[in-house]
Amino acid sequence: MPTRKLIVQKYGGSSVADTGKIKKVASRIAKQKKRGYDVVVVVSALGGTTDNLIALAHKITDLPSEREMDMLMSTGEQISIALLAMALHNLGLEAISFTGAQVGIITDASYTKAKILDINSKRIESELKKGKIVIVAGFQGATISDDITTLGRGGSNLTAVALAKALKASICEMCTDVEGVYTADPRIVSKARKLSHISYEEMLELASAGVQVLQPRSIEVAKKFNVPIHIRSSFSEREGTIISKEVKAMEDIVVSGVAINRDEAKITICDVPDKPGIAARIFKKIAEANINIDMIIQNVSRTSYTDLSFTVMKRDLKKALKITAQVAKSVGAGNVECNDNIAKLSVVGIGMRSHSGIASRMFAALARNKINIEMISTSEIKISCVISKKSATKAVRAVHKEFKLSKAS
Amino acid sequence: MPTRKLIVQKYGGSSVADTGKIKKVASRIAKQKKRGYDVVVVVSALGGTTDNLIALAHKITDLPSEREMDMLMSTGEQISIALLAMALHNLGLEAISFTGAQVGIITDASYTKAKILDINSKRIESELKKGKIVIVAGFQGATISDDITTLGRGGSNLTAVALAKALKASICEMCTDVEGVYTADPRIVSKARKLSHISYEEMLELASAGVQVLQPRSIEVAKKFNVPIHIRSSFSEREGTIISKEVKAMEDIVVSGVAINRDEAKITICDVPDKPGIAARIFKKIAEANINIDMIIQNVSRTSYTDLSFTVMKRDLKKALKITAQVAKSVGAGNVECNDNIAKLSVVGIGMRSHSGIASRMFAALARNKINIEMISTSEIKISCVISKKSATKAVRAVHKEFKLSKAS
Repeated sequence: MPTRKLIVQKYGGSSVADTGKIKKVASRIAKQKKRGYDVVVVVSALGGTTDNLIALAHKITDLPSEREMDMLMSTGEQISIALLAMALHNLGLEAISFTGAQVGIITDASYTKAKILDINSKRIESELKKGKIVIVAGFQGATISDDITTLGRGGSNLTAVALAKALKASICEMCTDVEGVYTADPRIVSKARKLSHISYEEMLELASAGVQVLQPRSIEVAKKFNVPIHIRSSFSEREGTIISKEVKAMEDIVVSGVAINRDEAKITICDVPDKPGIAARIFKKIAEANINIDMIIQNVSRTSYTDLSFTVMKRDLKKALKITAQVAKSVGAGNVECNDNIAKLSVVGIGMRSHSGIASRMFAALARNKINIEMISTSEIKISCVISKKSATKAVRAVHKEFKLSKAS
Repeated sequence: MPTRKLIVQKYGGSSVADTGKIKKVASRIAKQKKRGYDVVVVVSALGGTTDNLIALAHKITDLPSEREMDMLMSTGEQISIALLAMALHNLGLEAISFTGAQVGIITDASYTKAKILDINSKRIESELKKGKIVIVAGFQGATISDDITTLGRGGSNLTAVALAKALKASICEMCTDVEGVYTADPRIVSKARKLSHISYEEMLELASAGVQVLQPRSIEVAKKFNVPIHIRSSFSEREGTIISKEVKAMEDIVVSGVAINRDEAKITICDVPDKPGIAARIFKKIAEANINIDMIIQNVSRTSYTDLSFTVMKRDLKKALKITAQVAKSVGAGNVECNDNIAKLSVVGIGMRSHSGIASRMFAALARNKINIEMISTSEIKISCVISKKSATKAVRAVHKEFKLSKAS
């Protein structure tokens, strides 16, 4: 993608939580502008606004129409963009704000979780030509018939990536409340190191392993269109972590990071008849209830019965258990058991593709620390183990040390 | 204007002050719909929202850009329309909400006080055809380049009248916190009577005389396009007051109402040289400061000097005094005096055109009550007197009684 001297910056709700923070963000934008860059800024709603709006709707009805929810929710970002434009004017800069609809972010009509179909960037380009900083409401767009839509969770990041692509920006900066992506959670591993670079693939695996810096959806779009992302702090000038296509040097790094996810629970169906189609029946019902399943393990069957385990998000556990119990009964399986005292430990790294023995080093490190592994699942660049929750901290530290992640390689 | 079985209803901020009131308003709309009418509803921002948004902006800057203020302020009505649509859905009715921009309310680019240029009602018509109740954000529109604008004070009423005209509605209902237009303020005159009909001209005079039911701007537009307006309570089914073109029967009513306005102050410039062009110089300066002048009295001059008095809104008094003092000095006039302990008493009635002696009856009633008249100003259908503020209540009662306004004529 040919790029130009243009930066897309995105600020999340915590970065614009109040008018004081909005002023700080404005100063930060001013600096980029003074460095000679064209700047397009994507902003989320002021922290807390979204929750207040949801509460208002629920005072009216338990089941608000999704179209009207989007009409309501989209006001949150509209407030932020106007205030941020004012703050920039106050610094003597020319700035102009736009809603998603005004700026030609065309989506499908899946209200509350719309997909961006196209961006007509004519208006932005014309304002940039006048030397203005363009501020765009994140998280929202409009259908071709001009009905307001929102993009769902992580929508503002998606807006930023899509704009960066449409405008051929040199980079998409995600300004947030962390300094970048670390080899492990610094609150757990004091020696955790901030990564200067990471590949889209690794970031995707880390996101699904529980690192909540960026939603998989935005990373996928960035990967598809090769938009480099810079994850950095909203309130410091320090370099953060660049997410981009893998380069040769990255491949030498065997493991990039360790992630821990305590938000899942394990469900086990005992004595499942070992016949074709049974697993499909079970997981179809769960998918129909909009419950995402992460890991699935089926024990090797020596009899005609087998045990089937899988993990779901804890918030879905109750619903998932109910459905699982019904299905288990209908297929003639045994008891359904569950355990929400688990943690999922993952190591991620592009280097795994070409280096063997990573899994055994991980398992050995856990064994030395007497940590039992309940489930294992692997992908090309990730190994995940389910362990007991109480061992989580110890496990992260052990694995981080094993792969010497505190030292830049 | 040919009309159809369609009603435009407008609800102000106090009628949708909270979610409880929004639900009540929804029930009221439902009733009209069930009577077989197509209904288009115009809503203001939830009471208080506008003030909160202004406060937010002023935390950022003392002088917010007007374009960005409109971006910010327009979110207020957007919240109301979404919530009202949800409340109607909750009653099992089909309803759909639209911002001013979505519904084709095209304005000029005078941000914060835009004028409606055109309404493209295609989208509304198509939703009405589907049997839906259409809810439109009041107070706002968009320029031809899709920049969001607001219409200024009383803007939601203007939206309602303009939509009623564009859609050829049979009536434009202004649902508010009063029951209609009264012969005098019922808090002052207990026998004040609700008028069933009043003409646009009388309503215009009453509005400028201090009756704050409807802004002159909306009445003027309604008059221009002959849109009948029904002023009525948001929370009762009682008939209110219809404002329409004067009809023969109305002309028999000599006086329709008495109004009192305590919001003005009087400024007097003493010893103004009695030369052509002096008054023009004075009032040009005041107009340039965006201060509205109501009454102007110049005493007949027997010398080459004269006294010049005029009234302004109290909130403008300080600014007006400063300007007046400067101008007075520059034209060689004497002292500038002011009095904010005044009240303006007005009687309004189309019948005055054909009935003489109204002024003398009014003055006599005041004289009998020992109320001194400081200034007098008349129009074709109105007589206003400035009196001392402490006599205001007594004066209203005396004049109301003199013209027997508690009895329907």
